[in-house]
Amino acid sequence: MRVAILGVGTVGTEVANVLIKNSDLIVSRAGVSITPVVGVVRNLSKHKDSIIPLTDDIDSVINRDDIDVFIELMGGIDKPYEIISKILERKKAVVTANKALLAYYRNELEALAGDTAFGYEASVAGGIPIIKALREGLSANHIQKIMGIMNGTSNYILTNMMNSGVQFDEALKKAQELGYAEADPTFDIGGFDTAHKLLILASIAYCVHAKPEDILIEGISQISSEDIYFANEFEYAIKLLAIAKRGEGTLELRVHPAFISKDKMLANVNGVMNAVSVVGDAVGESLFYGAGAGGSATASAVISDLIDIAREIRNPMLGYKAPLESAPLKLLKPNQIRTKYYLRLKVADEVGVLAKITNLMSQNNLSIDSFLQKAKSKDEGCATLFFTTHTCLEADMLRVINSLENENFIKAKPFMIRIES
Amino acid sequence: MRVAILGVGTVGTEVANVLIKNSDLIVSRAGVSITPVVGVVRNLSKHKDSIIPLTDDIDSVINRDDIDVFIELMGGIDKPYEIISKILERKKAVVTANKALLAYYRNELEALAGDTAFGYEASVAGGIPIIKALREGLSANHIQKIMGIMNGTSNYILTNMMNSGVQFDEALKKAQELGYAEADPTFDIGGFDTAHKLLILASIAYCVHAKPEDILIEGISQISSEDIYFANEFEYAIKLLAIAKRGEGTLELRVHPAFISKDKMLANVNGVMNAVSVVGDAVGESLFYGAGAGGSATASAVISDLIDIAREIRNPMLGYKAPLESAPLKLLKPNQIRTKYYLRLKVADEVGVLAKITNLMSQNNLSIDSFLQKAKSKDEGCATLFFTTHTCLEADMLRVINSLENENFIKAKPFMIRIES
Repeated sequence: MRVAILGVGTVGTEVANVLIKNSDLIVSRAGVSITPVVGVVRNLSKHKDSIIPLTDDIDSVINRDDIDVFIELMGGIDKPYEIISKILERKKAVVTANKALLAYYRNELEALAGDTAFGYEASVAGGIPIIKALREGLSANHIQKIMGIMNGTSNYILTNMMNSGVQFDEALKKAQELGYAEADPTFDIGGFDTAHKLLILASIAYCVHAKPEDILIEGISQISSEDIYFANEFEYAIKLLAIAKRGEGTLELRVHPAFISKDKMLANVNGVMNAVSVVGDAVGESLFYGAGAGGSATASAVISDLIDIAREIRNPMLGYKAPLESAPLKLLKPNQIRTKYYLRLKVADEVGVLAKITNLMSQNNLSIDSFLQKAKSKDEGCATLFFTTHTCLEADMLRVINSLENENFIKAKPFMIRIES
Repeated sequence: MRVAILGVGTVGTEVANVLIKNSDLIVSRAGVSITPVVGVVRNLSKHKDSIIPLTDDIDSVINRDDIDVFIELMGGIDKPYEIISKILERKKAVVTANKALLAYYRNELEALAGDTAFGYEASVAGGIPIIKALREGLSANHIQKIMGIMNGTSNYILTNMMNSGVQFDEALKKAQELGYAEADPTFDIGGFDTAHKLLILASIAYCVHAKPEDILIEGISQISSEDIYFANEFEYAIKLLAIAKRGEGTLELRVHPAFISKDKMLANVNGVMNAVSVVGDAVGESLFYGAGAGGSATASAVISDLIDIAREIRNPMLGYKAPLESAPLKLLKPNQIRTKYYLRLKVADEVGVLAKITNLMSQNNLSIDSFLQKAKSKDEGCATLFFTTHTCLEADMLRVINSLENENFIKAKPFMIRIES
């Protein structure tokens, strides 16, 4: 089997390396040898030491008849969509690691692919075969919930904040020094990368066609050391979670930082590692843990797709041959979510403030689960209050926060984190 | 697709239940409906409320032409081997959850199956799609190590001993009361169930043909509350581990209780849950966690195999089309293992005893990593000593233990637990 690598950066180089280094094993697994015959790069002068032949002429490559599978590792959305569309029109198999592309165009690509193989195991948590697990391993289950830590950069920062007590900015700087965060980290710490992955998993589990702009996405940059303090006091970890949760004909899709009890497996996923918990109606909870990114973990996923193609394993791309649901699930709006909440308030240290807050909460159907007032803060005349609530409607919580923002006794913007279990 | 269920106990009943309850989903996933048309039981009078037609005539069922897949859930070894052989001779697909059968006859069954589909995802940790993960998801990797907690009964007992400080006998009794342990628990707590599963995974990862009697199998019944005390002091969990470890042309396969540092994910797998950690040369460490047993988790695995068969996903049974290794791996004998050790000794509280012990250890190449003497034991004139060692050869450790057993100052049989990381 002859393959072309479109985009030879960190991942593309490792795909070529592993194909060559593990060729003995791969031929045993696949039944045929898998050979990287050409790589496409934008600037040939930057790739002098390549172990495979390179070209900068992508059109000549995608029209070659002697190539069986095209591996798209270019990044971007519209350009790879155009390229892959041309390849699929020629009925040639495609493997991609491009989560942004799939977050926007997965249904169009599925229609284009038809019976042509289309692999994308590498697009979500490269070191974890979660696409295969959802599409095949757990195929007997109605999926009730997916909850995942799927961004290594954010998890590294949050782990560091929890363990070393450093502030967000310092943890981000450290992550950048170690190469775990980009110079512009918005895509990772803002939750967008996680959201793209969530949409891919949700499509397999629920046939959902949503795009990133349809779902709640919040990042981690507002997490303070006070939130970390509370989390440690109450035996929680703080994680950036991707959540898909099925209700009666409804679906919640959301990405946001969340408290999660330290006795849960997910709470123990630290550093740059990723994990995805899946709850199915027959299987109960399963959890899948591994490296989220990195050249060789992602290459492992790309090559597992190539081996599946060589073995002529032809799954329907999103894993179902007919719609999964008799009627499409209704995607809940963010304010229709129901969960538990943590609320941090900086207030004037005056008589009656607590009563005003608790009255406001009870008027809006918020029931308090725990309350902590932190010993004297540095700001003269201020106190920091921490609340957790029982399960309530997000709209009610947002109304309370809006009302509080207009009160004179509130001395900093109220900050809320959802609590998941 | 029409299926027959051979053996309608807890798992068989759940397979029928889930096929019926989730039929909407399953037809979407599989592209065809999957119907349980008949079940075979030994004693019809014990199955009055069955939701599928039953018979006690197995021969008539396995010769039916209108059945596409036979699900073997009878248990035992030789009888199901005979039945499945007859089914495969007729080129009919088979799905089984029978780990003992596969521990002994997997290679013979693979040869018999040829191009006929043979699914056995349910044979190892039903709630975890680990067969698929090893055979397909991680197919690009040389597997360096597999380490798993694969027996819920043992893990429940050890978790209870760690958390509640109860002795082994009491924890076993509790497990029996809760239905987590059989009246005769030997198969589970003796490590045999775990060993069967290890051999199946090792076959996929390493093409190894070993049988249970070829490998080291130790159970958990000798673990004492003193070992638990030491584990808690030094931040270890004690787990019954299945270990496959590849060296240079060699392979270790072993099942035994082991210390494992509490900061590892495996150490946090508690109660009846199972988990398998897999280290691959490209992917690094991945870990898979879920229910190990139980009717509906096992049914989930059985049905995922059925859906794969309906989708005409035909993997080579053990996942390779040609031998994985240029030369067969040499299976190490138990005394050729190299690892770290914990050693518990009950000794006479006399001058010079510690010097004698440490001399004996150093003469046998054992280097001490940590040492603890427990405050005064109840037995007059005795002390309990705890040692951990650096990595050494098992043969050296066994020689030290043998020598100690002949010493007058040793007041109870020395007890050793391996330490894994």
